Amino acid sequence: MTAHVATLLVACQDRKGLVASLAQLLYGHGANILDSDQHSDPVAGMFFQRLRFDMSTLTTDRVSLEAGIREVGARFGMDWRLAYGTKPRRVAVLCSKQEHCLYDLLIRHRAGELTCEIACVISNHATAEPIAQHFGLPFHHLPVTPETKAQQEAAAVELIEGNHVDLIVLARYMQILSPELVARYPGRIINIHHSFLPAFVGANPYRQAYEKGVKLIGATSHYVTAELDQGPIIEQTTIRVSHKDSVDDLVRKGRDLEKRALAQAVRWHLEDRILVYAGKTVVFD
Amino acid sequence: MTAHVATLLVACQDRKGLVASLAQLLYGHGANILDSDQHSDPVAGMFFQRLRFDMSTLTTDRVSLEAGIREVGARFGMDWRLAYGTKPRRVAVLCSKQEHCLYDLLIRHRAGELTCEIACVISNHATAEPIAQHFGLPFHHLPVTPETKAQQEAAAVELIEGNHVDLIVLARYMQILSPELVARYPGRIINIHHSFLPAFVGANPYRQAYEKGVKLIGATSHYVTAELDQGPIIEQTTIRVSHKDSVDDLVRKGRDLEKRALAQAVRWHLEDRILVYAGKTVVFD
Amino acid sequence: MTAHVATLLVACQDRKGLVASLAQLLYGHGANILDSDQHSDPVAGMFFQRLRFDMSTLTTDRVSLEAGIREVGARFGMDWRLAYGTKPRRVAVLCSKQEHCLYDLLIRHRAGELTCEIACVISNHATAEPIAQHFGLPFHHLPVTPETKAQQEAAAVELIEGNHVDLIVLARYMQILSPELVARYPGRIINIHHSFLPAFVGANPYRQAYEKGVKLIGATSHYVTAELDQGPIIEQTTIRVSHKDSVDDLVRKGRDLEKRALAQAVRWHLEDRILVYAGKTVVFD
Amino acid sequence: MTAHVATLLVACQDRKGLVASLAQLLYGHGANILDSDQHSDPVAGMFFQRLRFDMSTLTTDRVSLEAGIREVGARFGMDWRLAYGTKPRRVAVLCSKQEHCLYDLLIRHRAGELTCEIACVISNHATAEPIAQHFGLPFHHLPVTPETKAQQEAAAVELIEGNHVDLIVLARYMQILSPELVARYPGRIINIHHSFLPAFVGANPYRQAYEKGVKLIGATSHYVTAELDQGPIIEQTTIRVSHKDSVDDLVRKGRDLEKRALAQAVRWHLEDRILVYAGKTVVFD
Repeated sequence: MTAHVATLLVACQDRKGLVASLAQLLYGHGANILDSDQHSDPVAGMFFQRLRFDMSTLTTDRVSLEAGIREVGARFGMDWRLAYGTKPRRVAVLCSKQEHCLYDLLIRHRAGELTCEIACVISNHATAEPIAQHFGLPFHHLPVTPETKAQQEAAAVELIEGNHVDLIVLARYMQILSPELVARYPGRIINIHHSFLPAFVGANPYRQAYEKGVKLIGATSHYVTAELDQGPIIEQTTIRVSHKDSVDDLVRKGRDLEKRALAQAVRWHLEDRILVYAGKTVVFD
Repeated sequence: MTAHVATLLVACQDRKGLVASLAQLLYGHGANILDSDQHSDPVAGMFFQRLRFDMSTLTTDRVSLEAGIREVGARFGMDWRLAYGTKPRRVAVLCSKQEHCLYDLLIRHRAGELTCEIACVISNHATAEPIAQHFGLPFHHLPVTPETKAQQEAAAVELIEGNHVDLIVLARYMQILSPELVARYPGRIINIHHSFLPAFVGANPYRQAYEKGVKLIGATSHYVTAELDQGPIIEQTTIRVSHKDSVDDLVRKGRDLEKRALAQAVRWHLEDRILVYAGKTVVFD
Repeated sequence: MTAHVATLLVACQDRKGLVASLAQLLYGHGANILDSDQHSDPVAGMFFQRLRFDMSTLTTDRVSLEAGIREVGARFGMDWRLAYGTKPRRVAVLCSKQEHCLYDLLIRHRAGELTCEIACVISNHATAEPIAQHFGLPFHHLPVTPETKAQQEAAAVELIEGNHVDLIVLARYMQILSPELVARYPGRIINIHHSFLPAFVGANPYRQAYEKGVKLIGATSHYVTAELDQGPIIEQTTIRVSHKDSVDDLVRKGRDLEKRALAQAVRWHLEDRILVYAGKTVVFD
Repeated sequence: MTAHVATLLVACQDRKGLVASLAQLLYGHGANILDSDQHSDPVAGMFFQRLRFDMSTLTTDRVSLEAGIREVGARFGMDWRLAYGTKPRRVAVLCSKQEHCLYDLLIRHRAGELTCEIACVISNHATAEPIAQHFGLPFHHLPVTPETKAQQEAAAVELIEGNHVDLIVLARYMQILSPELVARYPGRIINIHHSFLPAFVGANPYRQAYEKGVKLIGATSHYVTAELDQGPIIEQTTIRVSHKDSVDDLVRKGRDLEKRALAQAVRWHLEDRILVYAGKTVVFD
């Protein structure tokens, strides 16, 4: 139903005439702008825009439109990305033993909340197999040991490439990806960290939170970069906790946070709402 | 510092070319668009836009720019409003015995959160006088009885008119305004109702909430219309309550909600972020 | 692991000596109090208490302890309920076509968040069958038409009775229960209503919310009573919405609210944390 | 109205009979328990209880009651504290140039939210003087330079001692207290830190948050200990932020968080709801 809709994301140095040029360009090709959201960062001197437009009224064609965007983009030094609604993204979900984020994504996908194709589910444990099967999805069991990590990653990459995967979602995947793998998919790997970053980086954040005695716990979804738990933050959620909560209670309460923060990030990514700049995200929500 | 910034708010039937026409118009006059936010309501077939632009680079002048907007507006049947940063709005705050919203607005104003001039404080009780004085503001005591209501309102109108007031804020003003007064200032009176509307309309909402045994209470800021507590909602806030909370506790917790919901509404109104349509608000935040 | 733990819930007219009598009684039998939460309602003049205690150190036996409680209860006119951790409650989940609350409860149950046995899943649609199967649970398809409503309910009651069900959870079950069925299980049927009650009672609350233009939507879990959507409220959740959200967006956002409010209510009920009084709940959380 | 109410706070090694002994003791003296809240920490093996009781029905006297508590306390090795409602705490508020927390506390105090006497307002800047005057409170201007820090603190201590101050509230007091001063008032100094601790310790947390690109900012109230920003956390609050928010916007939004987190902490402290253990707080709310 949104097959005829395209989304243009733009980032460049801020200057006069940007909004007008893009609006005029789209209008000139007969495209009808459905949504336009813009952000100027006065500190960085940057301009960001997201334009969603109707292609069904196009008076020219895609080739011509893209040439026009390319021309305007070159003139203003724009970093731009054009996505057509006709081509849903392909997603690979990676998980370990914990099931809640996997279930959550698959249920949301089935309910139509995530406009994508789930290409496959990959896990270092076999436990997720019945879940993937229940949702009619291919499952790949890639067990890993310190010795086999390189081969396991190579097998994962083969699956990702073979399945033409656009987005890799780490749904509580408890393995640290190699720098090579991360570098291969910049801005295309989303992780969920079970703390309110930058607090409680690393292992066992719920235990850290318990020992610190915080009164709120959080979860953070972010793009994966080479530095652990330091990638651009997409979404964060929090919930109240108290002295009554054991570490297990924090883990339980945290599951709800993780599910929501991860699903929101995936949804925004799939709807081309996120731009990354200077280690941060601009989210047109 | 934002004196050279102007804001254009537009509402009209949705159609192709709206975004391009406005962007082109502003560009043609040399204005630099700083922010642009747009909303298309597919159900109502309506288009809404807020454009904030820099006037300091204008290559023509205000008269010419306004003529241009008028021309485009007429072509597309636009309902539009242009506000210049050079002319801060003038606000009258009306209150009764409760002080928390009054204090909150005046403190925020002093901290620079509300870009306006507080023209005066009007109350049917004398208790607010030292507060107005503390902030160096004119205070007018207009006591009211059922018999003197008409005269009291007439006196209030005189103050509002005499002070060139643009916005009337009812900061827990416990009098119901007459239909005539309301009709005189459409979209220019903001009220705070101490419940999560449409629940608990009318008197004693905290008592109603207590008796119902709700687990969250709320506050609602809205434009005042002829129908009591039914005007377009601008902002709503909630907080958890429990069986431990007495009616007094709800009142206390509610004060925090009221302050925030009212201040947020006033702030958004002053920044020309609100459009009213079909009894609802579009808030470009 | 909590098999040796018992929970005593008490409600009575408030008077001196209640806390001491119960504490002394449990101590006298060798029980170790793990948790004690108390609430005195000065308006109603009522006293409520929840005592969780360790039975493994009992120096007498259950029969003797219960006799003691019965004696103290009679002396103070207490309404009391004693639950042993050895006997998990049996739950029937009723649903219709919407799957999100059903999935959510079954996933939480499998993760150990809900200490109960899911006796069966009952639906007026066959669509939930694969879900029940996936979780290894009995499924009963009881289709219903206006003409067969009485028989369908009779069949449901038979399943509930035959399965020794303690708690009936309406997980977006879109049928209105007959007064007879409701009267049969007082305080033992939990429903989720997809609005912030008492706002938007009845059908299509998300559409009502959309038309009203509220800035927050909510969900409410409550015990079912004869009057539709009027039973004692257990939990309420809210989330921000804006003019950008269509009715479908509200439905989507609301699913998250419904899941959490329902699961929280079921969890609290199963942990004997809820007392109902005067149409409201006391929740010892 | 709560002059006849006393509050007993207890902490000790967990063991059988604690609840019964205290309840029995109070009952024996004719005191009526109004509220009783208890927490057992199974990890630390600790027991914590808060008992609020009515003294007006006492059949003995205070001396006798205190002797009884002392006896039970010694038997179980309890750390206990008894506070009478007849003796409101005396509070000193310390602030610097920022006014919002000071205003907030004084307004809440006047509204009856904080049951204490504000002994005085102390600041290293003169700007707060008119605020203290407006609320009819003594103001002391104690300017400070790196050279005069020791004398300034000595003057502050003299004021605190001379005013019989029970609680010191740092309402955005931008000076770091000396270890000696902190050691003098253990558990009696409450600070507000403008971040979601342990994230963004130290200076300029809003700038740190801006640069990190977090999607929520927070505030933390805590008891002051020798280690900067590391004392036991009492309350934390958060609010959503986005790429649209400048550092100034974070500062503005943060003010609301700071006010609420600080006022809540002060309120809980004054109502004897907080116990500190192992660097964390137990808050009976």
